[in-house]
Amino acid sequence: MNRETIAELDRQDPLAHLRDKFELPADTLYFDGNSLGALPKAAQLAARKSVEEEWGTDLIASWNKHRWIDLPQSIGDKIAPLLGAARGQVIVADSISVNLFKLLSYALDLNAPRSTILSQRDNFPTDLYIAQGLEHLLGQQRCTLTCVESPELEAALSEDVAVLMLTHVNFRTGSIHDMSRLTRRAHDKGVLVIWDLAHSAGALPLELDTCEVDFALGCGYKYLNGGPGAPAFMYVAKRHHQRASQPLTGWMGHADPFAFTEEYAQGRGMNQFLCGTPPVVSMRALDAALDTFDGIDMEEVRKKSIRLTELFLQFKAEHAELESLRLVSPINPEIRGSQLAFSHPEGHAICKALIARKVIPDFRAPDIIRFGFTPLYMRYADVARCVDTLAMIVREGIYTAPEYQTFEKVT
Amino acid sequence: MNRETIAELDRQDPLAHLRDKFELPADTLYFDGNSLGALPKAAQLAARKSVEEEWGTDLIASWNKHRWIDLPQSIGDKIAPLLGAARGQVIVADSISVNLFKLLSYALDLNAPRSTILSQRDNFPTDLYIAQGLEHLLGQQRCTLTCVESPELEAALSEDVAVLMLTHVNFRTGSIHDMSRLTRRAHDKGVLVIWDLAHSAGALPLELDTCEVDFALGCGYKYLNGGPGAPAFMYVAKRHHQRASQPLTGWMGHADPFAFTEEYAQGRGMNQFLCGTPPVVSMRALDAALDTFDGIDMEEVRKKSIRLTELFLQFKAEHAELESLRLVSPINPEIRGSQLAFSHPEGHAICKALIARKVIPDFRAPDIIRFGFTPLYMRYADVARCVDTLAMIVREGIYTAPEYQTFEKVT
Repeated sequence: MNRETIAELDRQDPLAHLRDKFELPADTLYFDGNSLGALPKAAQLAARKSVEEEWGTDLIASWNKHRWIDLPQSIGDKIAPLLGAARGQVIVADSISVNLFKLLSYALDLNAPRSTILSQRDNFPTDLYIAQGLEHLLGQQRCTLTCVESPELEAALSEDVAVLMLTHVNFRTGSIHDMSRLTRRAHDKGVLVIWDLAHSAGALPLELDTCEVDFALGCGYKYLNGGPGAPAFMYVAKRHHQRASQPLTGWMGHADPFAFTEEYAQGRGMNQFLCGTPPVVSMRALDAALDTFDGIDMEEVRKKSIRLTELFLQFKAEHAELESLRLVSPINPEIRGSQLAFSHPEGHAICKALIARKVIPDFRAPDIIRFGFTPLYMRYADVARCVDTLAMIVREGIYTAPEYQTFEKVT
Repeated sequence: MNRETIAELDRQDPLAHLRDKFELPADTLYFDGNSLGALPKAAQLAARKSVEEEWGTDLIASWNKHRWIDLPQSIGDKIAPLLGAARGQVIVADSISVNLFKLLSYALDLNAPRSTILSQRDNFPTDLYIAQGLEHLLGQQRCTLTCVESPELEAALSEDVAVLMLTHVNFRTGSIHDMSRLTRRAHDKGVLVIWDLAHSAGALPLELDTCEVDFALGCGYKYLNGGPGAPAFMYVAKRHHQRASQPLTGWMGHADPFAFTEEYAQGRGMNQFLCGTPPVVSMRALDAALDTFDGIDMEEVRKKSIRLTELFLQFKAEHAELESLRLVSPINPEIRGSQLAFSHPEGHAICKALIARKVIPDFRAPDIIRFGFTPLYMRYADVARCVDTLAMIVREGIYTAPEYQTFEKVT
């Protein structure tokens, strides 16, 4: 494929105009939107406004005047369509880890006396850690985490299992679980399901309501572009509202927080999943970032994502020197998220050499180079230049230079 | 006291220059810094820089390049001197509610098999709610919340009590507990102590290390001026590090987060109290806000705080029409935080009438008008004008107007 063909792909891209909605450093090829999404111009403005006009000028009155108090719900309702969820089932609060603790507790409460949390061995570690923390707190009689390999999941669904906890798109490989099928299989055994959508929301069309998912959650800072450490979202299907309790009963989850009663009274609907006061400036950035999705068809986003990754693989195949990079993502794009992961014994050094040339993927131990593709701001030409740089680094053995051979964390 | 005397007080105020470090709306008298501190200019710049230069330009590399990864500890070490705490004992993360859940769990684990959490009836509700949430999760055999009236606290310290959980400065009345004495009495009975410093940090000199406090926590958005919903801090005395566990075991609390091991391994020191990814933009605002305290003697802050509140009471006494406002804060300034609370049957309407005149206190149900005094940016002249406005509203019965008689939340 020559330069002209690539330029033509960019010219015909129905999402091409969206790139203008982001502030992107001119000389950088950014393939890490799956770790930290780029800065939407709207988020930049909103963060500034929330500090200067809201906090600085209206001070405490902003909680009402600028509806800070509604942000957990109003941002949730902006995320809901990206998840295929009707309104009133999504809120934004805390971090994905804290929210998972709430959901696991709630699901165990709802499905008592079942006590097993079933997950897969290479789930995102923080999900496993949170389940381990709950297991340690409650004791194994009330909570036992069982992890199996991915192909064994369905067979492991038994009537002891309270909740199946899975990440939809695997953080390392990008492999996608069949949400509809696994949710159905779980329900057949009376098992509730929590889907972690960290690498899905904003990248793939999702159908939580149609798939009859019970619970889901995800972070705001990857494909939603909400900014570093943006608060996380959580989804609870309406049929499960008000049927159990979660233990992080902070005042924002109270039915009437400003009554300051001594006894906790569970808030209605999703409110009961709130805990403390949210970090407003970070909330505002996420809130505005989501406007970038206004009017976008997620099917178009998915189509472009697949084209970008397929093009990457096609370019890679044209470079014999890149054979040493072994694809660990599925070859079938239908079951692959918006990323490509390659293992290479010198993965870390190659990653550092790329970054030194302003091509930004990320590294995941022990040997994986991970390229994330964000269709909202990525161009086909970026993919071509990325593969060219990668090929040059491998061909010329640049990664063997001492400055790339020392290990340091590449976040 | 005449206008000239008041002006002289402001001229001689050794903290007067600090007001310039804040953005304050020119026409507003702000008496709610104990609910949301005003905007420090440094925080405004830092929030903007974190969005535009860090997130927008350096993207994911900012975690290392701009030391985002260290913010929980580095901000904690800035707060530590305000608490009378040596370095390495304070981190910033999550909300006060979430952090209290961690600390209560940790304290119960450390002091097992004791199971009682002792607190006082008019503690800040979210503290009680979180304890109730934990009690509900663990069952009363492992965790029982017992609340008594303040004067009964010492007598209630028994060998069944695992942890005494108190707020240092009462959120309604401003009454200060004797931290040194209560901590000692608790220790005499083998009881651990958690101090909630929401209304203390940044307002009063604190001596956590000297008082041999076990645990403490507080929020970033009141007297620390870190911005709306700024992340919270927590303190764990060094002697308790690595002796127990807390259940919110997210990846940031792992000994080596980027190793992505399947098993959680508790981080060293305060790191084990981290959970998920922090909201960086809000963290940056708090980080910079704390620089306002550089080189300030907290004893000076306290002296000015007492002078401001004493002056308020003196002015109030000069207005016979203000007799109907009953002081519910201690009359003795030595045991009173940086606030004055008054009850009045028409407290809510008076509060609204003040706000309509750009004098901003806040209202706490059922009938309390609460004035917060922030010595860093408050002038003696502000106090005089505040009392004059209050007296005029009461004298002329302005609060009886229909627009002030409808109830709405005055956050």
